[in-house]
Amino acid sequence: MTPSVSGSASDTVTAALVIIGDEILSGRTHDKNLPYLGRRLNELGVRLSEVRVVPDDRAAIVEAVNALRAKHQYLFTTGGIGPTHDDITAECIAEALDRRLIEHPDARAILDARYGPEGLTPGRLRMARTPEGAQIVENPVSKVPGFKIGNVYVLAGIPEVMQGMFESLAHELVGGAPLLSTTVVAALPEGDLAQPLGALQARYPDVGMGSYPFFGQHRYGASLVLRATDRDRLLAAKAELVEMVRAMGAEPEVGDDPV
Amino acid sequence: MTPSVSGSASDTVTAALVIIGDEILSGRTHDKNLPYLGRRLNELGVRLSEVRVVPDDRAAIVEAVNALRAKHQYLFTTGGIGPTHDDITAECIAEALDRRLIEHPDARAILDARYGPEGLTPGRLRMARTPEGAQIVENPVSKVPGFKIGNVYVLAGIPEVMQGMFESLAHELVGGAPLLSTTVVAALPEGDLAQPLGALQARYPDVGMGSYPFFGQHRYGASLVLRATDRDRLLAAKAELVEMVRAMGAEPEVGDDPV
Repeated sequence: MTPSVSGSASDTVTAALVIIGDEILSGRTHDKNLPYLGRRLNELGVRLSEVRVVPDDRAAIVEAVNALRAKHQYLFTTGGIGPTHDDITAECIAEALDRRLIEHPDARAILDARYGPEGLTPGRLRMARTPEGAQIVENPVSKVPGFKIGNVYVLAGIPEVMQGMFESLAHELVGGAPLLSTTVVAALPEGDLAQPLGALQARYPDVGMGSYPFFGQHRYGASLVLRATDRDRLLAAKAELVEMVRAMGAEPEVGDDPV
Repeated sequence: MTPSVSGSASDTVTAALVIIGDEILSGRTHDKNLPYLGRRLNELGVRLSEVRVVPDDRAAIVEAVNALRAKHQYLFTTGGIGPTHDDITAECIAEALDRRLIEHPDARAILDARYGPEGLTPGRLRMARTPEGAQIVENPVSKVPGFKIGNVYVLAGIPEVMQGMFESLAHELVGGAPLLSTTVVAALPEGDLAQPLGALQARYPDVGMGSYPFFGQHRYGASLVLRATDRDRLLAAKAELVEMVRAMGAEPEVGDDPV
């Protein structure tokens, strides 16, 4: 994507994500939250612009949170908010924002209702902790809430729960113009496409053009993805790209019009 | 994982990864390289300790590369080494390391052999560019090489190609003691496990204990993952954990002994 599309415009709203968890870094668990958030944020006009994956380590979490919350309008974290000793996200966010860690009354009320006096073990009670001044983020899946403080949204790591929390907060996010995209698939070698595609990119600096090669046993080629906030410019570039691929002797597969 | 396990030991060899590509951040493409590298590096005694996902943006790539190559023994990058205008990794690495960008003779020879004089388009010729002083990394899958310079290894984004490149360089990596792991699955609520698990962790500071809850339509519980470099300590902690779960009234599913 060209710099003019990827974020130099002052009206671009950006977000970052910190994925917290040794199990992601070890390869044991495959993260599914990045693709979900990338797609949904873009639909809301927010560009996911940077992601960091860090271990369950206090210094690493604090450093990543502080670096990214200063650079982006929104910061999301996933993981580390359960009841066990390795769930340290709440205390790390409190440290990063220099707030006291408190038992949040709204979170406590939810846990009381969910678990009852006998079920509310010390471990579960940990899940009521937030930095002072936080507001809870509702969890329609399994009740135990996340929280937000400033521009930092602290969500669960389990994808179904993370998605439920995100959808319960999505209405609060204020985005810019959504980045529209459309794809043209060309069964041509990327090396042949490179020069004419680069020439087309040069004539459309406001339309980001990405080439993503693929190959398998039966076919190969490249998915050419166009992205822009201006629908007319995007469609004009797409029409030229389709003609370009045809002129090279291949019938392009054209995706749906951008949404 | 406890700090004592996750990297404070001076003999721990760590690596970082920079995943380069708008298509990952947009959610269009799901990264498969992180889990592969996390798993394989650990087998070689190298701990993947930090990952950043950045857009196809020069400043962002340079910043991430310079931050991470200074903090870790090894830095890997994936993506952005193809023939099209949005493939800018080579020039970014050159800038980060303050080297000239050259046409590498070994890479050029591979491209000559692969494409011949007619097929070696200007776009494909871009794939011969490396920072001055780099060595090529062989690509057994599709020939076009990656490169390494200093402690930075620049690999393809396509998983099959990335894996081929990694396996061709893996013998060079010098790791520390591999982190052994074993898993005990308990069909118990994580909130009930939290306190006894925390107490067990306190008695085994050299064995990292992570709890990864799961739930589906038919079952729920937590995967309790133990990690340590000392096999005897790991097995001792595992035996205690198995007894702990049984004492709570659930028959644990016990994974294979650590490798």
